[in-house]
Amino acid sequence: MKKQRIIVIGGSAAGPKAASRARRLDENAEITIIQKAPDLSMASCGYPYYVAGVFDDRNQLLATPAGVVRDTDFFWNAKRIKTLVNTEVTNIDRKNKSVDYKNLLTGERASLPYDKLVIATGATPFKPPVPGIDLKGVTTLQSMADSDFLRKIGDDGEVKNAVVIGGGLIGIETCEALVLSDIKVTLVELLPQLLPFLDKDMSLNVEKYLKTKANVILENGVSEFIGENGKLKAVKLQDGTKIPCEIAVVATGVRPNTALAKEAGLKIGECRAIEVNSYMQTSDPDIYAIGDCIEVPHLVSGKKVHAPLGDLANLQGRVAGDNVIKGNVAQFPGTIQSGICKVFDYGVGAAGLSEQGAVRHGFDNIETVINVSPDKPGFMGANILITKLVVDKNTNRILGAQVVGPGDVSKQVTTWAMAVQAKMTVEDMLNLDLPYAPPYSLAIDHSIATAHIMQNKLDGLFVGITPTELKEKLARKDPMFLMDLRNPGEFEVMKIGIGEKLIPQGEFRDRLDELPKDKNAEIIAWCKISLRGYEAVRALMQYGYKNVKLLEGGVLGWPW
Amino acid sequence: MKKQRIIVIGGSAAGPKAASRARRLDENAEITIIQKAPDLSMASCGYPYYVAGVFDDRNQLLATPAGVVRDTDFFWNAKRIKTLVNTEVTNIDRKNKSVDYKNLLTGERASLPYDKLVIATGATPFKPPVPGIDLKGVTTLQSMADSDFLRKIGDDGEVKNAVVIGGGLIGIETCEALVLSDIKVTLVELLPQLLPFLDKDMSLNVEKYLKTKANVILENGVSEFIGENGKLKAVKLQDGTKIPCEIAVVATGVRPNTALAKEAGLKIGECRAIEVNSYMQTSDPDIYAIGDCIEVPHLVSGKKVHAPLGDLANLQGRVAGDNVIKGNVAQFPGTIQSGICKVFDYGVGAAGLSEQGAVRHGFDNIETVINVSPDKPGFMGANILITKLVVDKNTNRILGAQVVGPGDVSKQVTTWAMAVQAKMTVEDMLNLDLPYAPPYSLAIDHSIATAHIMQNKLDGLFVGITPTELKEKLARKDPMFLMDLRNPGEFEVMKIGIGEKLIPQGEFRDRLDELPKDKNAEIIAWCKISLRGYEAVRALMQYGYKNVKLLEGGVLGWPW
Repeated sequence: MKKQRIIVIGGSAAGPKAASRARRLDENAEITIIQKAPDLSMASCGYPYYVAGVFDDRNQLLATPAGVVRDTDFFWNAKRIKTLVNTEVTNIDRKNKSVDYKNLLTGERASLPYDKLVIATGATPFKPPVPGIDLKGVTTLQSMADSDFLRKIGDDGEVKNAVVIGGGLIGIETCEALVLSDIKVTLVELLPQLLPFLDKDMSLNVEKYLKTKANVILENGVSEFIGENGKLKAVKLQDGTKIPCEIAVVATGVRPNTALAKEAGLKIGECRAIEVNSYMQTSDPDIYAIGDCIEVPHLVSGKKVHAPLGDLANLQGRVAGDNVIKGNVAQFPGTIQSGICKVFDYGVGAAGLSEQGAVRHGFDNIETVINVSPDKPGFMGANILITKLVVDKNTNRILGAQVVGPGDVSKQVTTWAMAVQAKMTVEDMLNLDLPYAPPYSLAIDHSIATAHIMQNKLDGLFVGITPTELKEKLARKDPMFLMDLRNPGEFEVMKIGIGEKLIPQGEFRDRLDELPKDKNAEIIAWCKISLRGYEAVRALMQYGYKNVKLLEGGVLGWPW
Repeated sequence: MKKQRIIVIGGSAAGPKAASRARRLDENAEITIIQKAPDLSMASCGYPYYVAGVFDDRNQLLATPAGVVRDTDFFWNAKRIKTLVNTEVTNIDRKNKSVDYKNLLTGERASLPYDKLVIATGATPFKPPVPGIDLKGVTTLQSMADSDFLRKIGDDGEVKNAVVIGGGLIGIETCEALVLSDIKVTLVELLPQLLPFLDKDMSLNVEKYLKTKANVILENGVSEFIGENGKLKAVKLQDGTKIPCEIAVVATGVRPNTALAKEAGLKIGECRAIEVNSYMQTSDPDIYAIGDCIEVPHLVSGKKVHAPLGDLANLQGRVAGDNVIKGNVAQFPGTIQSGICKVFDYGVGAAGLSEQGAVRHGFDNIETVINVSPDKPGFMGANILITKLVVDKNTNRILGAQVVGPGDVSKQVTTWAMAVQAKMTVEDMLNLDLPYAPPYSLAIDHSIATAHIMQNKLDGLFVGITPTELKEKLARKDPMFLMDLRNPGEFEVMKIGIGEKLIPQGEFRDRLDELPKDKNAEIIAWCKISLRGYEAVRALMQYGYKNVKLLEGGVLGWPW
């Protein structure tokens, strides 16, 4: 029987996964990975933690759990997969079904035939075309070499100031890594908010926290890297500000590497990434593409998105591995763009669509709610969770959720990721049987309570107002009666301080005469997390007040 | 308008939730909670952690997150709910729609009419009818008084030895609490395994770990509590063993409190708990029942089960609160008996049916798989997770999963709880988009990898053997070729040691001549977690070996 020849272009995440899966399915196939970088199977999502000093042995980024470095010998001995590193594919010859490649160290060129080809060329950091971008000290954090460079800087301890350009996931992780290396960091973001996958009101909570660790500048971009003798000395921003620094890390997003595919005439999609069907097959049936170089459907809206995420790359690799061996048997359905990152002691994550994302994806009848609560009982050492839930009011389907805070964000986002992918509605969430014990959660889990609050809102049991909306009303000097339902002791320790009256929950039914006489007056109520506030709102609505609102998230959700 | 009169019998978890929800929906209703115990809204799942000294202020078990004790004044001032504590309902007069009650302190009796009645009478620990059960020192852990008693024992430091009777959730939590109070504990369980919601192979992992903390005796019950001057001195077991001890905690399950309902002629179900429909309505349409005294459908099998869990009690309370005010608008669909408990540094949890549970519930075509892996990358300080997945082979539906280990069990069980409730299949799990970052999980989350392994097994890519099955084969002295695929260094540090040959993965294709010549010989392969073992199995199957098996879970899953 003829041996199946499989070539995989790219040896980081998706590529090796596809190759390994193919090997397990077909011991006889001739499988070759061609990798431009010197390393293979790098755990690239781990780079910031190596830079931060979470661990010291860089080989851990390249090794199996048993400690064996996944190099050329490993791939051959353990998997009988041939790997060519430091080798760039220069051309895909679809007609003759072969690829041309060049060894980047020796300059040697050769060709290799394939029966099935897998493109896993990844993505490249976008570098803004501003003067000084090539200065020594200006870098990205996207390769082992970048990691080594930044780690050495932390170890040497000579660099005192750094600027991180970009407030997305990688920018924030890099910021954390450098701060943990005892470097003073300024984070610069062009947009008016950090982490654009979050809605503004949620990103404000991250911003508030991050500002306790680093300098944060929004709505400003880099206009020039200023150097001296080829070395970075400062970053100049678009508004003219100069920030002295010895290093700058550019984290302004990535672009799919599509040049090879494009030259080969493969179809490029609407997101300027390689177009594939659910089998991960390109417009050429013998060529598959996976990982950061492709676009995939968003499972909520059906729209194509570029989702360069390590977990998806691995899953797509397994699908392609199946299909190159067995024919098209496996499908990758798409993404909900789940993501999470650690920001010091905070977790920040999201699954599905944000409110602004839902609007962008064409949903026009959306309800949202913010829930703030501890992640477990206070006596177990609780930490706060802040969740924003986004629902399609036409169907009550969960479109997405965002969760931030020092609590167990990972479990919460996972719960919502499951709910979104299972196409669950608010009703489906109301009575979930989730594992409960005090060390792990509240008796009514935060996610379920969030659905309860959403149901209450959808049923008209209360009208909510977000912190941002209230802030805007305050700026407009709208006449409002503001009411905090907590105890005097709590109020003394921390309050919002926007002219609110303290009326403790236990007294408020006896102090109704202190409220506006006009039943149409706007009253806004809250407490620590707006549960007592909610009870007051319920009572007032039944007493005939027509314009009572609950400040969502309460004092703990106030992001300023 | 006539004020709706609502009486709730029971003031622990479900009752106050129903009352509070009812109040929020109807400010005018007359709502009364009648509670036998002196306290209200006790966080009873927190008792073991108070006993263990996790926190010192017992009021935290009774207080709101803002620190206000939920006593009679609180319920009146904050919620306008009347509460009668130390008060027992002695009779439900369905004809006249009233309840008779007695104050347990004063002996005073009275009656109160209702429009809607909610029964939330809970459950009572079963006490085995053996001599000495009333001795001083023999207790349960199910009330504030029990907690105070056991906490004082820990604080006093005089008790050195304790016996816990029962190896279920509460027994295990109590065992942990007492060990953390520096008491030597013997845990006695009548069944041949701990935690009967786990399959035997999974409970063995817990047993192995628990034995590093306490003395564990299985397949043995208490036959007598031996005392001296009315005080416990020893526990005598059914096999005659005497265990000297000063205290014994009975945790042999609970029985639903149905006496009142039964006397009132309400229908009792097949589990000897109060029968309700999905609206939480008993056979009397004006009487609802919720919490530990009722039975509910299992969502996987449809069979009725008694599921006395604090989270379900709260959810049912909310449903009943809705329905007593608004008519039957809310439904509680049922349970999948999700549960979790902390055992020192281990988490132990399950959602849906175990293998033995699935058989008991009538499933006759089941597949299972055990997956052992770190919960996140090694460089982030990974901890091990052991998962057993149970699937209906007729439909590939996820029936349930059990997870134990020091890793993030809570998130895993939550993931499976969502999968079971969303009626997901193995295929639905294969390409889930879950939030990934190295601080929180592997690139392919442990739950997804478990589904991958299950798919591989269902597709016939490997045949598995569980540790228990291999142990039985060893006992029968079945001829087998046993093969560990790890490196010599790993093998030296820890091995199973049952006659296996070490053939490192990187060498095994060159050492095939060391394998049995007979292609029908039984070969069993493994490694640390049986990933390298799996790759060897795949290769050997393709080399024509007909009887190769993978030891599921590998060295880390070997529970002895």
